[in-house]
Amino acid sequence: MNRMVPSPKPKIGVFDSGVGGLTVLRALIERIPEASYLYFGDTARLPYGSKSASTVAHYAVGAVRYLQDQGAELLVIACNTATALALDEIKAAADVEVVGVVDPGAEAAASASPRRKVVVIGTEATVSSHAYRRALEARGVTVREKACPLFVPLVEEGWVEHPVTEQVARIYLAEAFSEEGGDFDADVLVLGCTHYPLIKPLLRRVAPEHVAIVDSAESTAQAVAGQLQSTRPSSSGESGLGGVSALKFFATDSAEKFRKMGTRFLGLPVEDVLHVDLKE
Amino acid sequence: MNRMVPSPKPKIGVFDSGVGGLTVLRALIERIPEASYLYFGDTARLPYGSKSASTVAHYAVGAVRYLQDQGAELLVIACNTATALALDEIKAAADVEVVGVVDPGAEAAASASPRRKVVVIGTEATVSSHAYRRALEARGVTVREKACPLFVPLVEEGWVEHPVTEQVARIYLAEAFSEEGGDFDADVLVLGCTHYPLIKPLLRRVAPEHVAIVDSAESTAQAVAGQLQSTRPSSSGESGLGGVSALKFFATDSAEKFRKMGTRFLGLPVEDVLHVDLKE
Repeated sequence: MNRMVPSPKPKIGVFDSGVGGLTVLRALIERIPEASYLYFGDTARLPYGSKSASTVAHYAVGAVRYLQDQGAELLVIACNTATALALDEIKAAADVEVVGVVDPGAEAAASASPRRKVVVIGTEATVSSHAYRRALEARGVTVREKACPLFVPLVEEGWVEHPVTEQVARIYLAEAFSEEGGDFDADVLVLGCTHYPLIKPLLRRVAPEHVAIVDSAESTAQAVAGQLQSTRPSSSGESGLGGVSALKFFATDSAEKFRKMGTRFLGLPVEDVLHVDLKE
Repeated sequence: MNRMVPSPKPKIGVFDSGVGGLTVLRALIERIPEASYLYFGDTARLPYGSKSASTVAHYAVGAVRYLQDQGAELLVIACNTATALALDEIKAAADVEVVGVVDPGAEAAASASPRRKVVVIGTEATVSSHAYRRALEARGVTVREKACPLFVPLVEEGWVEHPVTEQVARIYLAEAFSEEGGDFDADVLVLGCTHYPLIKPLLRRVAPEHVAIVDSAESTAQAVAGQLQSTRPSSSGESGLGGVSALKFFATDSAEKFRKMGTRFLGLPVEDVLHVDLKE
């Protein structure tokens, strides 16, 4: 499905259940600063992790339809749970190209792993879905998935450089990289949750030195840039967070709360936020 | 409203958005072992904290009506958010007596505080509602409320006796009991979240020695026992977790997940779980 009509300034719709996907938006702005962006955070109905696949699909389809109505010419599903549980249904319901967050991360991890052994960390919901496992095994890579349920609340508490977060990371990563009767000698660590880029410097210090860190947010931005390059070769491709992109935000819960929390995740002021009510 | 018809074995309905309210059920079983219990966990729609008051009221009313249909003769709202945002609406919709979790905790705290200064810890949602503040100020007590958003995920991770949890508790309680230009010399700490009884021994070690800990779960069980005593003076009042109570559980998300997590919160086997689908 590629009915996108090229315009001088591509309009990209980004969807997440909350503010986490703003790390993906940030990576997109760095890669494709000439685009304009519409971001939809379904903050009233998060977390998606505890909901059934059909409910998640229903919510996500409603949100991406809304983004299309606002003029989105390409859709990025910046939510691991929605990608894992509902990407096919979203693609079927959308009239424009849809990029999820799992495949680009898996592709980058596979390329970066000479040992063909990868550790994926994420929320309980993402790990239980085994979406990364499937995507990586299809690329001939052995996977260990490790749920790190405390990272999201630690990031939301603002403890991104904090001794407690470092201690928690040491515990989780020790479990992820060790194995009864020997170590799991993976050479890549995939950040399979949109909150984790905020603690990437800390994870870099704590992870074994030889391990490469693959950030799904960055890999997804790269995939989207490639997609645009192939359909609109005039894209300048210049990089930077110069604030030249036009940004518009939609949130289903309080706009004020979104503004406050969002600024930390985006690393840029979150200003133009509209509260949206989607029917169930 | 007191249309409860006394029966030889009172049937008590307990409602929470998830498994946290099982600490209230545990306290109830200890106090009133001769009762039989129906517990409703609205696990598919949690957390309530990020939802509007009208949505929470709508969900809670649906759940307590379900409990009444199952024969509940008295209802306990074992959820701080639902109590804070929707107790009046629940009472209006119910045909039996309703006991919330905030007033009993506030009453116990006021009685235990000669200094008339109390610290309340809870989730972000409970603190923002200021339900404990209102209830305590009405009793002439000065209150400091402190949100402790990491405690719930730490308890759910199972780290109830863990150095990380102890470090987090030291940070939160230091903030709660100190004040610019001097300490806030409270003599009571209220556990205003149903998850916190699981880390009560740890909080006891970390809190200042002279501070009394008031556990809303226990205070609520006490209030319910008093309520029953006044309407059915024949209650034996014998105490213990001897497993004599009849227990039945209803969950809106996976029954298996509820069983697994619930056993830790209740401290008793959670066996008879029925999955329930409530219409929106």
